Amino acid sequence: MLLALVTISLDGYMAGPDITKDVPMGVNGSRLHEWILDPTPADREFIADTFAAVGAVVLGRRTFDVGLDQWKDTPYPAPSFVVTHRAHEPLQMSSASFTFVPDLDEAVTQARAAAGDKDVILMGADLTQQALTSGLIDEFRLQLAPITLGSGTRLFTGTERHTFEPLGAQQTPRVTHLRYRTTATATPSPPDQRNRVPR
Amino acid sequence: MLLALVTISLDGYMAGPDITKDVPMGVNGSRLHEWILDPTPADREFIADTFAAVGAVVLGRRTFDVGLDQWKDTPYPAPSFVVTHRAHEPLQMSSASFTFVPDLDEAVTQARAAAGDKDVILMGADLTQQALTSGLIDEFRLQLAPITLGSGTRLFTGTERHTFEPLGAQQTPRVTHLRYRTTATATPSPPDQRNRVPR
Repeated sequence: MLLALVTISLDGYMAGPDITKDVPMGVNGSRLHEWILDPTPADREFIADTFAAVGAVVLGRRTFDVGLDQWKDTPYPAPSFVVTHRAHEPLQMSSASFTFVPDLDEAVTQARAAAGDKDVILMGADLTQQALTSGLIDEFRLQLAPITLGSGTRLFTGTERHTFEPLGAQQTPRVTHLRYRTTATATPSPPDQRNRVPR
Repeated sequence: MLLALVTISLDGYMAGPDITKDVPMGVNGSRLHEWILDPTPADREFIADTFAAVGAVVLGRRTFDVGLDQWKDTPYPAPSFVVTHRAHEPLQMSSASFTFVPDLDEAVTQARAAAGDKDVILMGADLTQQALTSGLIDEFRLQLAPITLGSGTRLFTGTERHTFEPLGAQQTPRVTHLRYRTTATATPSPPDQRNRVPR
């Protein structure tokens, strides 16, 4: 199952502005992850269950570039597939290896094969939006943080309409865990840039 | 208690694009309110409880202008205060009356007095953002619809950072009911228009 697993603010940001290697979540973006840094028992259980089920990861090149110094390993202890046009030899880390793949479809295919019956986790805003538009995502697991960030990178930037099937909601004092199954009801909107978020 | 009570999509829209009197929720925006039009028992209970607690309403002039033909009454059966620079005589409807007030603070003061120990409901995206920025809102009751709209009017458009206190989450097959208490921790961001949503 291909999962988009991401924490977003109430105003829809999954990272703050001005992302760099030193500030990979962007300015103030680490506030999104307070539920991970200071988890309640329910959050801790969610994290443990999620990690145990991860069989592979698909991530964008930019996520790889800004995240590697912090992870000093693969982001999860599982084979990780980086979508990038720049060819690169596989990179063996302590838990698993990074493999560099030229397009999203191919990365997802390789990741699904590597994961077996475990989950594939998708990382990165652009890649998540692309995968949603392409109908590749099976489930969203959103952690809705009880904050607004006011600026940064939004998770949902597409102009098409989707309908999801709610699978559960659990609120802890830190975050609200939301699960949605994607359904085959995406309806392309006519091109309309008026309300488009600048990127 | 001043409540912002509003349904938003997963991509943060509280109405679709191209709002007119004939299409007051904007194009496709009525999809946000499917939980009201076709409620589950839990949704029906939420609606009944909310209506029973409404003591007054504060709404924007634009919300009034586009909504009146549909409501043919006040939006809730309670005194309703329209924030507008255009002076207007009070308008008596079947349930209650509209009073036209020149600024938000004054409208909230009058609405609180009219509501007594009942709730004041705030309606309209611009007004809600203004009230949030000004620290007037006591509680958000967000109905998170399991859809993306792709374009329209966003609820949260401010550039400042806020932290809320989660008060509860209940997911029905139609919508997720989220409650947050606002806290006095708003942190103004420096002016930064780069990620600002066009309005």
